Amino acid sequence: MGVDVRTEVSVAERAALLEAALGFARECRAAVRAIVACGMQIDVKPDYTLVTNADIRAEEVFRRSVQARFPHAGVIGEELGASDPQAAYQWIIDPIDGTAEFANGIPLYGTIIALHYRGQPLIGVLDHPALDLVCAGGFGLGVKVNGRSVRIDPSAVRADGKERITTPSRSSYVRYADEGHRFDALARAHPNFRVFHTCYAHVCAITGGVDAAIEWKAKLWDLAATRVLVEEAGGTYRLLEEIEQPGGGTLYSAVFGKPELVAGIARLLSS
Amino acid sequence: MGVDVRTEVSVAERAALLEAALGFARECRAAVRAIVACGMQIDVKPDYTLVTNADIRAEEVFRRSVQARFPHAGVIGEELGASDPQAAYQWIIDPIDGTAEFANGIPLYGTIIALHYRGQPLIGVLDHPALDLVCAGGFGLGVKVNGRSVRIDPSAVRADGKERITTPSRSSYVRYADEGHRFDALARAHPNFRVFHTCYAHVCAITGGVDAAIEWKAKLWDLAATRVLVEEAGGTYRLLEEIEQPGGGTLYSAVFGKPELVAGIARLLSS
Repeated sequence: MGVDVRTEVSVAERAALLEAALGFARECRAAVRAIVACGMQIDVKPDYTLVTNADIRAEEVFRRSVQARFPHAGVIGEELGASDPQAAYQWIIDPIDGTAEFANGIPLYGTIIALHYRGQPLIGVLDHPALDLVCAGGFGLGVKVNGRSVRIDPSAVRADGKERITTPSRSSYVRYADEGHRFDALARAHPNFRVFHTCYAHVCAITGGVDAAIEWKAKLWDLAATRVLVEEAGGTYRLLEEIEQPGGGTLYSAVFGKPELVAGIARLLSS
Repeated sequence: MGVDVRTEVSVAERAALLEAALGFARECRAAVRAIVACGMQIDVKPDYTLVTNADIRAEEVFRRSVQARFPHAGVIGEELGASDPQAAYQWIIDPIDGTAEFANGIPLYGTIIALHYRGQPLIGVLDHPALDLVCAGGFGLGVKVNGRSVRIDPSAVRADGKERITTPSRSSYVRYADEGHRFDALARAHPNFRVFHTCYAHVCAITGGVDAAIEWKAKLWDLAATRVLVEEAGGTYRLLEEIEQPGGGTLYSAVFGKPELVAGIARLLSS
């Protein structure tokens, strides 16, 4: 294993980039809250998922701010595509992760903002406008929730059925492939699960609110902030698969949280 | 079907009782928030579930206030037992529904307060201290969330796999009996589910945030407020079973929300 490419960016630069990311998150939060206050419009996308004017507006605000401050960086967004894919720095956004929850008045939705450097996650922010909760950190900088440092308790979890995990619902396991049996095996082995369907589940894994969290067949932006946050909190992040879709785009599955439990779940879901 | 026994209580009396229940909820919320601010203590009960000093404190506050205002009513609480079981009016409390979530910093926990009259639910309050969200109503009085009237959209839900439901995790289906197959059948038939493990799921069913919600092998207080709220919002509440436990106490399973979907889930879970 060579030197981590992210050490090419100085600690002071990383700290400044984290502050910039937090500023972008605050702007997105204000845009989302303004639309919540004034009434949202909901549309159905070609893949039958939902999009609202808040998704579009928050991503526009983000792109404009990134462009103004970091004109040589690339931007990848859920709603408005990618620009400058060859740039070393890539700013990534899911303006509203959990649009279905947002549209249905459930406050667990979040804005995901990440900065990757040469393909590696440098900075991550998970912001929850309705919960007034922001989880943010960067490589070598630790991770904070609403300004308070968090660490994952490193003690082993007894996998006796009481361990707490989050998973997507069975719909995520059957959407792109017939893998419902993987959900069923998981639910039998770790029956005390929660299903949130937003990046709030990632915050729970980072704070120890759950012992481990799973994402299944997710997009780049869904997981773009999570690895660096989990690792900075002392947890383990395991990529389980990375699958190119026939129509373009890549799907990622991952498990993260307390190290021993992550290893067990990784074995279960890979078998 | 005879006259509903609840009509023995005048509308004006019911409105006054709802105001009283809301006052009790505010007192409990203040007690819970004070303990959150000062640090909670967590213990394990004989049945291996958790209890905190916030559960105990909120129930004490409730009992003292009910006793002062309604000295002839009975009180049933999760933590401190029952008094006056023969009284026509029974005040019921689960001081913190979702104690595991509360202890793990997940804000979906709630306080359940209900008033039953001659065995029928007259008043219901679901209060969420961390979400600043209160759902309250009474027989013939409608239901409000943070003061705004809510109605369940009566239009039929297409049960095409995209319908949104909540369910307890598989652990609730295997805790008292070997009924994991019921969870598995539910997850296959309605794969787009959420799992919250608190009465916040009931609020979602009442507001239309989900199309239907299930409770499985729950205690009296877990469901004490829900039926009257669902019915006042125009939804359907179906009790699926009511089972006496050998050691005392009764377990209830129920499904509630949009009428057609409730009927379908009731068939699925009863077969």
